Amino acid sequence: MTDDIPTAAALVIGNEILSGRTADANLNAIATRLTAIGVPLREARVVPDIQSEIVAALNALRARYTYVFTTGGIGPTHDDITVDAVAAAFGVPVVEDPRARALLERYYGAEKLTPARLRMARAPVGADLIENPVSTAPGIKIGNVYVMAGVPNIMQAMMDGVVLTLRHGPAVHSLTISGFMAESAIAEDLGAIAARYPHIDIGSYPWVREGRFGTALVARGTDDVAVKAAAAEILALARAKDPAAAISAG
Amino acid sequence: MTDDIPTAAALVIGNEILSGRTADANLNAIATRLTAIGVPLREARVVPDIQSEIVAALNALRARYTYVFTTGGIGPTHDDITVDAVAAAFGVPVVEDPRARALLERYYGAEKLTPARLRMARAPVGADLIENPVSTAPGIKIGNVYVMAGVPNIMQAMMDGVVLTLRHGPAVHSLTISGFMAESAIAEDLGAIAARYPHIDIGSYPWVREGRFGTALVARGTDDVAVKAAAAEILALARAKDPAAAISAG
Repeated sequence: MTDDIPTAAALVIGNEILSGRTADANLNAIATRLTAIGVPLREARVVPDIQSEIVAALNALRARYTYVFTTGGIGPTHDDITVDAVAAAFGVPVVEDPRARALLERYYGAEKLTPARLRMARAPVGADLIENPVSTAPGIKIGNVYVMAGVPNIMQAMMDGVVLTLRHGPAVHSLTISGFMAESAIAEDLGAIAARYPHIDIGSYPWVREGRFGTALVARGTDDVAVKAAAAEILALARAKDPAAAISAG
Repeated sequence: MTDDIPTAAALVIGNEILSGRTADANLNAIATRLTAIGVPLREARVVPDIQSEIVAALNALRARYTYVFTTGGIGPTHDDITVDAVAAAFGVPVVEDPRARALLERYYGAEKLTPARLRMARAPVGADLIENPVSTAPGIKIGNVYVMAGVPNIMQAMMDGVVLTLRHGPAVHSLTISGFMAESAIAEDLGAIAARYPHIDIGSYPWVREGRFGTALVARGTDDVAVKAAAAEILALARAKDPAAAISAG
């Protein structure tokens, strides 16, 4: 991987994820979209609704990766502190963004644009808006940071627009071989294949189905020919243990 | 929250989570179990199968929190590098643990204990074992770090044993009020309630169901009486918008 290939990190913001009340769905949605366009997601963090924690994580991630995607904390309630935290991380004040205000006025009507709803027009100075096709209140882009909603379908709609604008590397090809073989039964031969294909990322992911152990073996890389060659060797290895082992894209 | 209350962090290890191939299920399982016993999970990170990344994240987290729980990368294949990374983080060598070897010998039989399977007996010097009631190969405890499997049902079985051994704070009580009201319609009154109950964590989580917006309002805290009082006020607020708004534990 060269320096030319952009990288990404995700920052999930919210007490509800850390308390276990809500199972995060956004990380997987972000990862899937970035992988599809050739922007490797390198790290993710989950932090609580505490400004100093958000600032510290955001500054660590934005210094290190090409892009940072945050989710959560941009709504109208008292616990929505992400905009202030992002502004603090960048060392800029928060202002009411006239473009965001205009969007919200059109959506709610001027007389129903309460102070709480107007909170969703607040943005760090210098930020651009991210379109929200679901419920209007926009996300925010500042520097290399994309600040998105926490509600999964809103976040995904925002992300679907954002990915079209990103610089990206070559697409990653991926093939998965899955069968009822214990990981430990194929580990040595798999290691030998991995050593012969140093530029292919070969992963082994055990699973349990109806009380029986199986393994998914994944070959990933930007060199499609090498991915296919490695996958063919892995398939032969798997079929020696489970003749019904199957290969699929992804 | 006083210094007496232990804290925790989770470290999810694995390329498959960051590529989006696998949706992580372990973070929520860890969060749920820790919350139930009164150990607040304060942060989570996801890192790839790269030793330097695992070491850096682990050293940052173990210095800051009472407990760190890792998942993934302790199997028999070439991409299972967590044990080596944990040992490197602690600055100790990896050895074959005789207790782990004995467990694996009993499970596989001595003649089927291949070098790949024996990899699962490797542990940092000074580590203790974490019982694996599902598939025997143990997890590892070293210092304040608990190294667990990535397969969710194995991880959960390990964690169910581990939580019994942890020092913990007072249990957290939680009540949720949910109804078809827009978050922005109750934001100001909710903020006023939150200001009156500074020791209760009041969260607002919008959702979308069948195209209609609703919100879940959660009151959480160790003071059961105050949680109930705050929740009663929130319920009245919600019912003013949606007479069918409901309250439930959790």
